[in-house]
Amino acid sequence: MERLTVGTGRLELVRLAHGGGGLLTRELVGRVFLKHLGNPVLDRLEDAAVLPGRLALTTDAFVVSPLFFPGGDIGRLAVCGTVNDLAMVGARPLALTASFILEEGLPLADLEQVVASMAAAAREAGVTVVAGDTKVVERGGADGLFVTTAGVGLVPEGIALGTDRIRPGDRVVVSGPVGDHGIAVLSRRPGLEFDTPVLSDCRPLNGLVAHLFARLAQGVGTSAVRFLRDPTRGGLATVLKEAAEGASVDIVLEEEEIPVRPEVRGAAEVLGLDPLYLANEGKLVAVCAPEGVEEVLAALRERPEGREARAIGRVEAGRGNVILRTAFGGRKILDLLPGEQLPRIC
Amino acid sequence: MERLTVGTGRLELVRLAHGGGGLLTRELVGRVFLKHLGNPVLDRLEDAAVLPGRLALTTDAFVVSPLFFPGGDIGRLAVCGTVNDLAMVGARPLALTASFILEEGLPLADLEQVVASMAAAAREAGVTVVAGDTKVVERGGADGLFVTTAGVGLVPEGIALGTDRIRPGDRVVVSGPVGDHGIAVLSRRPGLEFDTPVLSDCRPLNGLVAHLFARLAQGVGTSAVRFLRDPTRGGLATVLKEAAEGASVDIVLEEEEIPVRPEVRGAAEVLGLDPLYLANEGKLVAVCAPEGVEEVLAALRERPEGREARAIGRVEAGRGNVILRTAFGGRKILDLLPGEQLPRIC
Repeated sequence: MERLTVGTGRLELVRLAHGGGGLLTRELVGRVFLKHLGNPVLDRLEDAAVLPGRLALTTDAFVVSPLFFPGGDIGRLAVCGTVNDLAMVGARPLALTASFILEEGLPLADLEQVVASMAAAAREAGVTVVAGDTKVVERGGADGLFVTTAGVGLVPEGIALGTDRIRPGDRVVVSGPVGDHGIAVLSRRPGLEFDTPVLSDCRPLNGLVAHLFARLAQGVGTSAVRFLRDPTRGGLATVLKEAAEGASVDIVLEEEEIPVRPEVRGAAEVLGLDPLYLANEGKLVAVCAPEGVEEVLAALRERPEGREARAIGRVEAGRGNVILRTAFGGRKILDLLPGEQLPRIC
Repeated sequence: MERLTVGTGRLELVRLAHGGGGLLTRELVGRVFLKHLGNPVLDRLEDAAVLPGRLALTTDAFVVSPLFFPGGDIGRLAVCGTVNDLAMVGARPLALTASFILEEGLPLADLEQVVASMAAAAREAGVTVVAGDTKVVERGGADGLFVTTAGVGLVPEGIALGTDRIRPGDRVVVSGPVGDHGIAVLSRRPGLEFDTPVLSDCRPLNGLVAHLFARLAQGVGTSAVRFLRDPTRGGLATVLKEAAEGASVDIVLEEEEIPVRPEVRGAAEVLGLDPLYLANEGKLVAVCAPEGVEEVLAALRERPEGREARAIGRVEAGRGNVILRTAFGGRKILDLLPGEQLPRIC
């Protein structure tokens, strides 16, 4: 069979960093996926595709290791991840699908625990799993259990989000402390186990988003929210870098305003990791109109998922940079990470 | 963490046969998936879920080994599999998603070849991939490349298919010879390679189904088709056994009428396999009203995908049995296979 060549034509191999959510992931998406499958909807690379008829569609594969971690497991992660991807385009989730790839020898009790956890998360989010599939591969052909979820949702009239709506002067809000999920999973990584009280923040955000828009509709208007994203793989910095580039603006963050739990900061320091690049699974970043920021903060804080919401920065005219202003007045550019910070974090 | 116990409470492990599409798959679905995630839509276990608003939703994981085989590859398989699951509930595909799990060290050229093949199959089916995801696991954490696709479609007004519509007297039709895909993949299985001219039948069937319903709408009416299914994993026998049980009827098949290519029959015999249980990826089985069978056959034969369509049996009052009448007047019960006939066939 004739081989297609990628890039330079050398025999290039997939590296862990291709899945890290940073620069190499982006390169792979462009050079392989968009090259062949590209179309106006896919090319937007939003968390969920929005089709004619306001139908939203999304998918994510979950390969987190270990399967169970403080505050969650791969099943809860999969349901919340897909529900949240729908919520980030403003969609109300209608239904989910779930496909399982199982390794021969996985304890059935582990599988059942994961499935029960998916069911609980789905109830929490008010959504059902309506279709599924299971495949089994021989021992050594997979690592325990992988889940891929897809979700379909409906975007209510009057809600349109996207980087193209971001303008200089807009404000950046985060719904709570960042980095919890990354540290929680790492604390149970074989060979790296450490004690920490940090739990994954893994939770559905569709209720929070519905509440946010319902409240804005009574006040400043839903259009005050320009853009939503859940900072999963790659963390806050990666999401904002993508937003800044997508909108061709700069985003200036105040380091002092970004909420990070002391335990997360401490563990990250020991591990040599930057909390701004750590994965979150129950937080959202919102870019909103300056006149709407107080209402957005108030709405988020009315719900437990957004109790610790903070305004952390602002949008300026620029060329796609994210700039972190430190407590001492320094400025640091936050770029996409060239490689993999944390493999199999989700 | 407390472990949930499954069944007897012994430490039971996932076996390859749990993914084989037979008895153990069904047991797993009931004991784990439906137990926790069950709801009226999921419980129907159709190829695709049909939601209020006639929206159809489906997903499948693909773990076929090897990735490339005569007549197709994992990418073509994934697109066709999902398009066909939509088509089997009568839905027109609107959009697909694709999630990839890649093993570190996979040649990027292999990935690109798979993605290019997905794009070609999607064009053939007239559908686009609108959302995706990529994860990478370390060497040994997966076997090369797994793809999970999901699809959303719309069921046109007036089309309602399901085992609940099957009645005694109905006829059973298959769109062409069975077993091609199974033999094509096995012929390239490491350690088992053999020469065969058999190509996988992997192809989208949405065009064939649309043509079938368009033609019936001009004649006997679309309600003449009661039930459609593509006999993938588990093959013709498994699909018909599930239909017979779902409808609480017997299905009597005429062995002489079931089309099987001589090369497939020969290879299956050498391998000790029954072609009626071999996977197909481009065939459909239809149960139709007796007064519609000639029109259904004529419509199928007008398209290349259905050129070799045959009536192979009929529905009788009964209790969920599939009975094969052999050339010499014998009768053989076709049951679900207790174990795995062919791991990783799709």
